[in-house]
Amino acid sequence: MLTFALPKGSLFKDSIQLLQKAGLDFSAFLDESNRQLQITDPTGTAKALLVRAQDVPVYVEYGQAQMGIVGEDVLREKTPKVAKLVDLGFGGCRMSIAVAQASGYQSPLDLPPHSRIASKYVNCARTYFDSIDLPVEIIPLYGSVELGPITGMAEAIVDLVSTGKTLKDNGLIEIEVLYHSTARLIAHPLSYRLHSDRFGQLIQQI
Amino acid sequence: MLTFALPKGSLFKDSIQLLQKAGLDFSAFLDESNRQLQITDPTGTAKALLVRAQDVPVYVEYGQAQMGIVGEDVLREKTPKVAKLVDLGFGGCRMSIAVAQASGYQSPLDLPPHSRIASKYVNCARTYFDSIDLPVEIIPLYGSVELGPITGMAEAIVDLVSTGKTLKDNGLIEIEVLYHSTARLIAHPLSYRLHSDRFGQLIQQI
Repeated sequence: MLTFALPKGSLFKDSIQLLQKAGLDFSAFLDESNRQLQITDPTGTAKALLVRAQDVPVYVEYGQAQMGIVGEDVLREKTPKVAKLVDLGFGGCRMSIAVAQASGYQSPLDLPPHSRIASKYVNCARTYFDSIDLPVEIIPLYGSVELGPITGMAEAIVDLVSTGKTLKDNGLIEIEVLYHSTARLIAHPLSYRLHSDRFGQLIQQI
Repeated sequence: MLTFALPKGSLFKDSIQLLQKAGLDFSAFLDESNRQLQITDPTGTAKALLVRAQDVPVYVEYGQAQMGIVGEDVLREKTPKVAKLVDLGFGGCRMSIAVAQASGYQSPLDLPPHSRIASKYVNCARTYFDSIDLPVEIIPLYGSVELGPITGMAEAIVDLVSTGKTLKDNGLIEIEVLYHSTARLIAHPLSYRLHSDRFGQLIQQI
């Protein structure tokens, strides 16, 4: 039986809808009283695990799920050993560098050396600042990264921006877009090679 | 002005109540319509930042907050450079090793070498298994760690257990308690030395 790892959070509803188009019904997850973390499609042909977005590639990499849906941002940060199959188009957002509007910085190159950069995406932030040869201190945070510049702990943040409302509400502005992210269909490489017919058919339906 | 870093999540309400006893009112955070991440006490003598539990020691370590409230579990996992002042008593839980009931394992020593251990507390898990000289593979997860043994991805988990209901609901049993955790009052070491009078007075009130 094919198992999907589906991400909680912003990509969740679109992921369920997408699989419905391919004849797989996991809408029981949408029921607010649902407490189950794994359910089987009513046709009995597929199963889904409901996990944190960052955990989707883990379940796929270890083969507990043969396929998964996850944002490009997670794949770039974690670089898991999974096959990237299709850009699903939804969940569009961008990985950006933002600073306090009052700081006057207009480009990452304006940041002084040894600036502090707060981010949930430490690998991504490190890679970018290495690429422009600017030595910075990365401060790993788990949430509300916008507090970094507000409290004066960090000169800038590297974070995922969707509508830009959170930045605006907190007096921050984007000074650079590192990349655009959308939801991706990923697969366990070996499962994909062994069951390429089934996977191919499913991708067509999607 | 003294700034407190307060943790979202399970310690949140008790933290607000505790500071109220010391005459500091941050109950505006409890208002469900509140979107602010930092507020000032009505007396104007203290400020509070509302952040993820894991980020509390970061704000304190960097001196953006002079004091913070956080679980012992976070302090053990991150080993931040902060002064631990008081065991606040609330938020009691334990860091445990759990396995599927059906597995038959009754002690960590029953686990076969090179078992997979799923955990949000990778440093804590690594330290423990090193201490018993059992080579294991730690699988870092962000949430729903109980899915590890359920899906067969991991033989065991290392996770925080409060009532034990989640474990029971998922057919898991505890086979070892690594330590007990409660909420702690922490401080920025230098601020603490410089303002020991103010801090001491506050600790007395608490």
